[in-house]
Amino acid sequence: MGGSSRVVELVQYGMGGVGRALFGLVTRNASDIYNRLGIDLRYRALVDSRTALHLDENSALSPQHLGHLLAGFQANPPERLKDQAGAVEKPSDLSVLATELDRLRRDDRGARLVVVDVSGASETIMEPVISAALRQGQYAVLANKRPLCGPIADYRQMLAAAGTGANRLRYETTVGAALPVISTVTALQDAQDRVFQVNGTFSGTLAYLTSRLEAGVSYSQAVREAKEKGFTEPDPRDDLGGVDVARKALILARLLGSSLELKDVQIEALYPAELADLDIPGFMESLPQLDAEYAGRVEEAAREGKVLRYLATVTPESCRVGLEKVAKDSPFGRLQGTNNLIVFRTARYDQSPLIVQGPGAGAELTASGVLADILGLARRA
Amino acid sequence: MGGSSRVVELVQYGMGGVGRALFGLVTRNASDIYNRLGIDLRYRALVDSRTALHLDENSALSPQHLGHLLAGFQANPPERLKDQAGAVEKPSDLSVLATELDRLRRDDRGARLVVVDVSGASETIMEPVISAALRQGQYAVLANKRPLCGPIADYRQMLAAAGTGANRLRYETTVGAALPVISTVTALQDAQDRVFQVNGTFSGTLAYLTSRLEAGVSYSQAVREAKEKGFTEPDPRDDLGGVDVARKALILARLLGSSLELKDVQIEALYPAELADLDIPGFMESLPQLDAEYAGRVEEAAREGKVLRYLATVTPESCRVGLEKVAKDSPFGRLQGTNNLIVFRTARYDQSPLIVQGPGAGAELTASGVLADILGLARRA
Repeated sequence: MGGSSRVVELVQYGMGGVGRALFGLVTRNASDIYNRLGIDLRYRALVDSRTALHLDENSALSPQHLGHLLAGFQANPPERLKDQAGAVEKPSDLSVLATELDRLRRDDRGARLVVVDVSGASETIMEPVISAALRQGQYAVLANKRPLCGPIADYRQMLAAAGTGANRLRYETTVGAALPVISTVTALQDAQDRVFQVNGTFSGTLAYLTSRLEAGVSYSQAVREAKEKGFTEPDPRDDLGGVDVARKALILARLLGSSLELKDVQIEALYPAELADLDIPGFMESLPQLDAEYAGRVEEAAREGKVLRYLATVTPESCRVGLEKVAKDSPFGRLQGTNNLIVFRTARYDQSPLIVQGPGAGAELTASGVLADILGLARRA
Repeated sequence: MGGSSRVVELVQYGMGGVGRALFGLVTRNASDIYNRLGIDLRYRALVDSRTALHLDENSALSPQHLGHLLAGFQANPPERLKDQAGAVEKPSDLSVLATELDRLRRDDRGARLVVVDVSGASETIMEPVISAALRQGQYAVLANKRPLCGPIADYRQMLAAAGTGANRLRYETTVGAALPVISTVTALQDAQDRVFQVNGTFSGTLAYLTSRLEAGVSYSQAVREAKEKGFTEPDPRDDLGGVDVARKALILARLLGSSLELKDVQIEALYPAELADLDIPGFMESLPQLDAEYAGRVEEAAREGKVLRYLATVTPESCRVGLEKVAKDSPFGRLQGTNNLIVFRTARYDQSPLIVQGPGAGAELTASGVLADILGLARRA
């Protein structure tokens, strides 16, 4: 690759499922990526809520070395990393990250720096860090939805920092994992098309739930199954409440130009407010009291030849997520398993919409989409 | 936009349906694009097989002015353009284009130059022009499939000129018009996924034909209808022969890493070789002799609960296009109208493939995809 090669340094925040998958993917493929694209991808820092690991630029950053670091992180992060050659460990603190960004900017070695947020950190913690990196002319890739769901003023500041024409921020995996959703809307907008509506299923967990209800399983049983199979968060209300889907809907709505806040999204939660304060076992025990209601809704839909799906419906003006009755033989009605289906209706794709479909969840797929985002930025001329 | 604005100059080759649609789209939206993205999109030259129109950089390139030029082109290209202020007309000759590129390179004003090929010109004419622009560090966007279907050595030379890491060549609309097909494969490859197979319908004309056959209409009648409705080229054999679909398949195969040539693509033509040398009326008259054969194939498929679709099937090693029997209730079997459906099977999207669906033809949609490609290149940091 010689003179045309380019160094791209990663500062990764988050070492959960997606973070570890991404770290593995990058380290296993670094030499292939270099040979194929001339992009020399290097980790500069790995940060999670407990530990900040900074890799000195002179360290031997071989895949083997990084593999050891990953093993260390997976086994027992704080204790095992100290003895890794070239690794400087500091207590985790985002001000450290900001300082590091500043230092990197000053010892400019012509490298592109990409801040990668694969954490679940809150909007208020991450937005300033990301905005700071972007204002410095650096790059950011987010799998974390929250920095995009904070107050609209912060959101707009972050986008402005990324540059209007020369966008240095990517967040494909925040909606539908690695499926081309954000990039499709961006291409439609670049084509001067008007996107009227985006309609989609964005929760594998709720897709599982509605398919079980459709099969005649009771609501309480379906939630228990989903929890036991590990499809839900430890507290199933984190899925049933619809807020995760609402964040995805809000990201799309803002991309379409809306000024909505998360509180403006109409969210149908699949449990009543009075169950919000119970502990998890208490919540699980109270579920059967909802069985009759959901059985009734399934039956009512079936009488009309319809089935229930948990859908997000986004326009430039409005944003709602909740259960919808859809025709059994419509694309949404035919949807099986935990696949996502996203329907884009635009001025040009009006009679027949543009449709994207496929698995839209999982740590490996999400990590793969983050890597595609990183290389998409790194490939820029 | 001030300091962050960027001048992007277009040299467009081709003023047929797509070319005129693109020209209209750019000129109508130039000020919106400038306001939204800070990208100052200007025409530098318009070339078709008869006329080369060069716009001096000092010309008043207002949308109104350009609108007049377009009207001139549409009405009567060679005669009407001479009196346009700021337009220098020369006889069309691609060596003029090459000279112009060279001149632009020498009076470097920091503008990005994008060569846009929306013509149907042959691979051998266009490839050197595109490669030359890319070697000069400029950009190219192709809706013309042919430059990507020439000898594999030329193809590889063109890609190398575009830069491996910093790709300066886009050709999204060569497969499925503005649907995200090429960009999806690129993102999958950036994600270090392995694409095993891409399966798709890539001809609205042949989709119409198979749906009419399915409805019980005879082959000869279906072809006549398609011709009368303007769905086919003036000579329907240009569609029925399958070569246009084969070119799309070859572009995908090469993107997957194959070294195939167009002659290596297995093509099922929907008429026998002995009808190739007839004139168009003679060909149309001879069609009824094929009715029994196609009626038989439709019937045979129906007995298995299947329907016929004209599909491209592409792997890194092989490439074929032709009629396939598909289950009536499969995604391909359910496909209606002239929509394209593309199914990507990869190491990660294996159990459930990634699917893209929607209208994949038409001058307006293709032009919109070309504009998205242009802005995708122009937005790069």
